[in-house]
Amino acid sequence: MIKVGVVGASGYTGAELLRLLHNHPEVGVTYLSANRYAGQLVTSVYPHLTGYEGRTFSAFDLNEALKEAQFFFVALPHGKSMEVTPALIEIGRPVVDLSGDFRLLDKSLYPKWYGFEHRAPSLLGQAVYGLPELRKEQIAKANFVANPGCFPTSVLLATAPLLMEKRVLAKETIYVTSLTGVSGAGHQIREDTHFCFCDENVSAYKVGGEHQHLPEMEQEMNQLAGVSFKLSFTPVLSPFSRGIFTIVYLKLKEEVSFQDLLKSYKDFYKDKPFVKLAGESSPQMKSVLGSNFCHIGLKLDRRNGCLTVLAALDNLVKGASGQAIQNMNLMMGLDESLALEGLGIYP
Amino acid sequence: MIKVGVVGASGYTGAELLRLLHNHPEVGVTYLSANRYAGQLVTSVYPHLTGYEGRTFSAFDLNEALKEAQFFFVALPHGKSMEVTPALIEIGRPVVDLSGDFRLLDKSLYPKWYGFEHRAPSLLGQAVYGLPELRKEQIAKANFVANPGCFPTSVLLATAPLLMEKRVLAKETIYVTSLTGVSGAGHQIREDTHFCFCDENVSAYKVGGEHQHLPEMEQEMNQLAGVSFKLSFTPVLSPFSRGIFTIVYLKLKEEVSFQDLLKSYKDFYKDKPFVKLAGESSPQMKSVLGSNFCHIGLKLDRRNGCLTVLAALDNLVKGASGQAIQNMNLMMGLDESLALEGLGIYP
Amino acid sequence: MIKVGVVGASGYTGAELLRLLHNHPEVGVTYLSANRYAGQLVTSVYPHLTGYEGRTFSAFDLNEALKEAQFFFVALPHGKSMEVTPALIEIGRPVVDLSGDFRLLDKSLYPKWYGFEHRAPSLLGQAVYGLPELRKEQIAKANFVANPGCFPTSVLLATAPLLMEKRVLAKETIYVTSLTGVSGAGHQIREDTHFCFCDENVSAYKVGGEHQHLPEMEQEMNQLAGVSFKLSFTPVLSPFSRGIFTIVYLKLKEEVSFQDLLKSYKDFYKDKPFVKLAGESSPQMKSVLGSNFCHIGLKLDRRNGCLTVLAALDNLVKGASGQAIQNMNLMMGLDESLALEGLGIYP
Amino acid sequence: MIKVGVVGASGYTGAELLRLLHNHPEVGVTYLSANRYAGQLVTSVYPHLTGYEGRTFSAFDLNEALKEAQFFFVALPHGKSMEVTPALIEIGRPVVDLSGDFRLLDKSLYPKWYGFEHRAPSLLGQAVYGLPELRKEQIAKANFVANPGCFPTSVLLATAPLLMEKRVLAKETIYVTSLTGVSGAGHQIREDTHFCFCDENVSAYKVGGEHQHLPEMEQEMNQLAGVSFKLSFTPVLSPFSRGIFTIVYLKLKEEVSFQDLLKSYKDFYKDKPFVKLAGESSPQMKSVLGSNFCHIGLKLDRRNGCLTVLAALDNLVKGASGQAIQNMNLMMGLDESLALEGLGIYP
Repeated sequence: MIKVGVVGASGYTGAELLRLLHNHPEVGVTYLSANRYAGQLVTSVYPHLTGYEGRTFSAFDLNEALKEAQFFFVALPHGKSMEVTPALIEIGRPVVDLSGDFRLLDKSLYPKWYGFEHRAPSLLGQAVYGLPELRKEQIAKANFVANPGCFPTSVLLATAPLLMEKRVLAKETIYVTSLTGVSGAGHQIREDTHFCFCDENVSAYKVGGEHQHLPEMEQEMNQLAGVSFKLSFTPVLSPFSRGIFTIVYLKLKEEVSFQDLLKSYKDFYKDKPFVKLAGESSPQMKSVLGSNFCHIGLKLDRRNGCLTVLAALDNLVKGASGQAIQNMNLMMGLDESLALEGLGIYP
Repeated sequence: MIKVGVVGASGYTGAELLRLLHNHPEVGVTYLSANRYAGQLVTSVYPHLTGYEGRTFSAFDLNEALKEAQFFFVALPHGKSMEVTPALIEIGRPVVDLSGDFRLLDKSLYPKWYGFEHRAPSLLGQAVYGLPELRKEQIAKANFVANPGCFPTSVLLATAPLLMEKRVLAKETIYVTSLTGVSGAGHQIREDTHFCFCDENVSAYKVGGEHQHLPEMEQEMNQLAGVSFKLSFTPVLSPFSRGIFTIVYLKLKEEVSFQDLLKSYKDFYKDKPFVKLAGESSPQMKSVLGSNFCHIGLKLDRRNGCLTVLAALDNLVKGASGQAIQNMNLMMGLDESLALEGLGIYP
Repeated sequence: MIKVGVVGASGYTGAELLRLLHNHPEVGVTYLSANRYAGQLVTSVYPHLTGYEGRTFSAFDLNEALKEAQFFFVALPHGKSMEVTPALIEIGRPVVDLSGDFRLLDKSLYPKWYGFEHRAPSLLGQAVYGLPELRKEQIAKANFVANPGCFPTSVLLATAPLLMEKRVLAKETIYVTSLTGVSGAGHQIREDTHFCFCDENVSAYKVGGEHQHLPEMEQEMNQLAGVSFKLSFTPVLSPFSRGIFTIVYLKLKEEVSFQDLLKSYKDFYKDKPFVKLAGESSPQMKSVLGSNFCHIGLKLDRRNGCLTVLAALDNLVKGASGQAIQNMNLMMGLDESLALEGLGIYP
Repeated sequence: MIKVGVVGASGYTGAELLRLLHNHPEVGVTYLSANRYAGQLVTSVYPHLTGYEGRTFSAFDLNEALKEAQFFFVALPHGKSMEVTPALIEIGRPVVDLSGDFRLLDKSLYPKWYGFEHRAPSLLGQAVYGLPELRKEQIAKANFVANPGCFPTSVLLATAPLLMEKRVLAKETIYVTSLTGVSGAGHQIREDTHFCFCDENVSAYKVGGEHQHLPEMEQEMNQLAGVSFKLSFTPVLSPFSRGIFTIVYLKLKEEVSFQDLLKSYKDFYKDKPFVKLAGESSPQMKSVLGSNFCHIGLKLDRRNGCLTVLAALDNLVKGASGQAIQNMNLMMGLDESLALEGLGIYP
C-alpha cells in the first residue's frame, strides 16, 4: 500500500483526488491537509466523500506530511504550490503538482501570465510536463511531475498527432475556443460563479491572449512541432459544472485526405487507453463526465482547407486529478489505469 | 467469472447496468439484447460505454440468452418483462427484474395502476422484493428478485425505521413529495422530456393518487408496520438528469425526542453500507450522483409534532441498476458492495 | 408621470423593479439608491438594464430621495428596511416595502423568526399586507403596503378560496413543500449559491418550522379562515434561477366533489387578472417565467380525501417586484396591470 | 389596428411572435394557423400564452387567411414556407417570412444546403434580406422580407462595421464558433433534444462547412465587403433553452488600434436601438434573454493581430421573431421598437 498525501485537499481538484483514490487498490490516502478547513470533517465539507467518514482536514505541516505519506499530490492554487512543493522535492519525495507553478520553463513568463515572480525558479526545468499520452517514458522515470492545465490537455491531445507530422499544418494562427464548466473557477465563491449568473448564461473571459494557459500551450505545441505557432484562445464560461469542450481550427498546408488525417490520429492514439476517437462525429462532452477519458472528433472542411478538431474531457479528471493519478501510476510503476477505469456517467 | 446477461440493455437502466458492471471484478457481461437497436454498436448509442467497444446489441432470443449467460438482469419496460422473465425463471436462471411487473402481490392491482392484465400472475408471489436494507437474508436465498421502484426505494428507506417501531407514528395520511430527474421518464423521446420543456421548469404529474408506485409503497409500508397507512404522493418532474429527492411528512403519535428518533435510524442503518444519515441536516442530492448511496436527514417540528424526513438517491443507481447489482451480489454470495464502491460525483 | 424612487436597487428585486418599471407608461424612475454600488453605472452591475444607460446608483440619502421622488419602493434586506421606511412614511410618501419588516403584526415574532428586535414597532399595524387578490380595496386606500413574501404569495393564492369557505377544510396540519429558484437567496455570493453546488442538486433548508415566512403564512391564513391552522413547511432549493412551485396538501372535512372545489377557485379568481387556473392539470412553472402570473392546479385524491393544490409563480415578479408594482398601481389609482402585461417567456 | 396573421403559429418562433405581439399597441393577431394542432386551444399547447385564452389554432386556409388578416408572418419550417408564401405575395399582402426559403439569391444553393429544389425560384430576388441594422430603408419600402437566420444575424452584426471598412480585414478564412440553445432545434421531439442528452452536455453539429446558414452568411458578408470571404463555422449545441453566443476570429490586414476598431463599431451602431456595445468586456448572453437586443464585445490580441468579436442575442427574439416584428414595424411605417421595448430577463 502506497501512502499518499493530498496537500490542498479541500479544493475541487483535491476533493476529486480523494474521490478517485478511494477506489485505488494500491494506494491509501494517509495525509490530508486543507488550511482553510483545518479541523473540520471531510464529510462536513464534502458530503459525497463518505469513504472518508471520520477523517478531518489538517493544517499543512511539513514534518507531519513527511511522516505520514511517501507520495504527494499538491493541489494548491497557483502561487501557493511553490511554497510547499520545493521542500517535498528536496527531501526526495515524489510529487505530482496540479498547479501551474512548475509547468512553464521560462521564469520570465510568470510575472506576465500569473502575476507573480517565481520563487523557486531553479526547479522549473526539473518537473516533467505530465501529459502521459506524450511523455509516458519520461514520467515513468520522474520524481517530479507538473500536471498539465485542463485547457492545455484538451488542446494538446487535439493537435499532437498533426503537430508531430510537421508537413501538414500551415504556419498560421491556430484558433481555439474552449467551453469550460464552472468548476474550472474553483471552490471559492465569486460573483461569476453565482448560480444565477452562470445558469442559462454564456460569457467569455480573458479573451484575446490573456489566459495563463496560453504560454503553456504554446510551449508544448512548439516543442512538438519544432516550429513556433501562435494561438488565439477564447475560454468560454458555460452553464455546466464539469467538462471542457475544445474546438481547434487548423489550416492545412496542402491537400490531405480525411482518411490520412484520421489515420494519423488512430496511429498516434492506438495504445493510449484514455483517448477515444469519434471519427467524423462530434464528441459528446457528457460521455466523459466523471471519467479520465478524452474523446476527439475531426472534420475536414474541403471548401477552405481547414480541419476542425473537437476534444471533450472532464476538467477535474483528465484535466486535473485523474491525469495526476495516471501520472502517479506511471511514476510508481503501476498500471496506468488503476483507479481510472470508471466509465463516464450518462445520462 | 459469472456470465451475466442484460435484457433491455439500451434503456437508461440497461446502460447503467453496463456502466456499473464494467467495474465488477467477478462478473462479465456476456449477453446484451436491445430489440430497438439490434445490430448497432453499443458505443454508437451510448458513446460513454467505451468499455464495450466493438460489442453490439442483439435482438432478444431466449435460446441464445440461455446459452450465453447464467444470470439475468431484465431491464425491459413495464408490461414487457412479463413476456421474457417467466421463461428465464422456469428454466431456473436467477433473475433480477427491474420492471414493475413482479413487485405487486395482488394481480388485481395491475389493470388499475399499470393499465394491463397480468399475464404471469402465478409468479407474483415468487419474486422477493429486492430492497436489501429490509430483506437481505431473503434476497440471499432468492432466485428471483423484483427490484424496487425508484420512488419506493426512497420512501421505504426514509420511513422503515419508524414504521417498524409501531408505537411512534400516528395513523394518519403520510404525505410524500418526490422530485425526480428527467431520466426517470426513460430514454424514449416525448413532449415532456424535450430540453426546452424541462429546463428551468417544474411540473407535477400523476398527482392525487395516480402513480403506479403508490400501491407498491403502500404494500411494503403496510407489511413493515403491520397496519394500513394511506399515502398521498406527488411526483415532481424537475430540471436535472438524475436523482430523487423525497420529502416525507410523518405525524407522530406522541411526543418523542429528536434524539430517540435519530437513534432509531442509526440503529437500523448501522451495518447497511449504502445508507448514510445526515442528522438534522438536509441531504444534498448531488452528493449521491452516480453512486449507490442513499442519504437521509430528519427534522422534527415541535410546533406540530411532525417529523420531516428527507431522502436523496440516484434514481438510476440505488433507485434501479445499482440496487439490482446489490441484489445480484447477495444472490450470488458475493460481497454486497462489489462494483458499487464508487463515491458520488461532486461537484 | 409619477416620479418613483427605488431604495436598494441593486439586489435582485431592485433590479427587477427597474426592468418592469422601464415599461410602465405612467411612471419614471427618478431615484435609484444602492449603497454597495454607489457611484457605479447601473449597466456595469446589470448589463441587461440597457434602459438605464448612463444612470448610476447613489448612496441612500433621505433628503435627496424626498426631493427626487414621490413614491417609493424599498427593496432592502430584512432588518434594513426598518431603518429607512419609517422616515418615508412619517413624511407621508407612499411606500411599498418589499422586505419582511412590516408584514407581521406581532412584534414579538421578530426576534424568533428574523433574529432581531423590531425597531419601529408602532408601524406594524399600519402597513396593509399587499396581496391584491385578497385586499384590493384596502390597498387602493393605503399609503403603506407591506409586500408579501414569495412563498406566502404562492401558499395564500393556493389556499384562499377554501380557507374562506370555512366548512371545507379539516382542522389538521397543512403540509406545504415549496421549490424555489436560487434567486430567492439574493444577489450576495454564498457557499450555497455557487453554481457547482446548486446545479443538478436539490436540498432543503430551514426544514421543520424554521423559515421566517411561516408566521406570515399562518397569520394571513388564520385571518382568512377565522380559525387557527398549523403549517408544516419545507422550502427546497432547486436548480433554476427563478420560480416557485408550491405543493399544498389539504385534508377535506367531508366529501366534496372536485367540481365544487374547482368552482370555488373559479368564482374566487374570476376577476383577478393574474391568477390562472389549470384545472386538474399541473401548472408548468416555466409558463410564468418573467411574468406576474400565478398558475394554480388542483387534484383530488379520493382514496384519502386529500386535495393537492399546485401553484407556480415567478418569485421575483408575482413573488416580489411585479406584485409591488401591482400594489403601486392600485395605490395610485392606475390600472392594476400597467407594466405587468408581459406574458411568460417560454421556452 | 393592423390585422396580423401568423402562419405556423405552434412552433417556437410562432409562439414567440404571439408572445411579443400581445404587447404591440398597433397590432391585433386575427389569424392563427398551425396544421399540427388545428382545433386545439393555444393555451393547451402553450400555457404561457394566457393572452390568447379561448383562441384555437386553425388549419391553414388561404382564403380564410386573406379574409382575416392584412399582414402575414410565415413561421413555417424550411421547405414549407415556399408552399404558402408565394400566394400571399402574389395577392399583394405584405409578408415577413421567417424560414430560409427566400434568403438565398441563388436557387442552385438550395439542393446542396437545404436538400430540396426550390419551387418558387422567381421570388428569390424579390425578398429583402431583413436585417434592419443593415437595410433599414430597403425594408421600409418592401412588401416581402426574408427574415435572417439566427446565426447569420449574430455573425453579420458582429462583423458588418469592419466588413464595410474594406481596408481592415486580411482576406483570410474567418473562423466562427456559435453556441446555440436547444430551442434552435425547434419544437419537434428528437433524440438530440431530450433533456438527458442536452443537460450538462455540449456537442457540435454540422461541423466543417455543412450548416445551411453558411451560404447565407457568406452571401451577405461578401455583399457588405465587396470581396469574397470564406467562413469556417462550427455550431455548438449547448445546455440552455434560448440564446446564441457567437465568437468570430478576424485577422487584421495591418496594425489598427483598438480605439479605432471600437470607434468603427460605435459609429456604425450609433442610432441602432437594438445593438449595444460592451467595449472590451464580454457580453453576457443572459443579459438579452427574452429581448430583442444584441450585445457585442471586441478584444484585440496584439500578439497575433487577431480581433475576437463576441456577439450575444436571443435566438427566438433578435434571431427570429423579434427581428420579424422589427421588420414589420418598418414595413408598416411604425416605430421600429414597438412591442420590442422589453429588457432582458435577468437573473
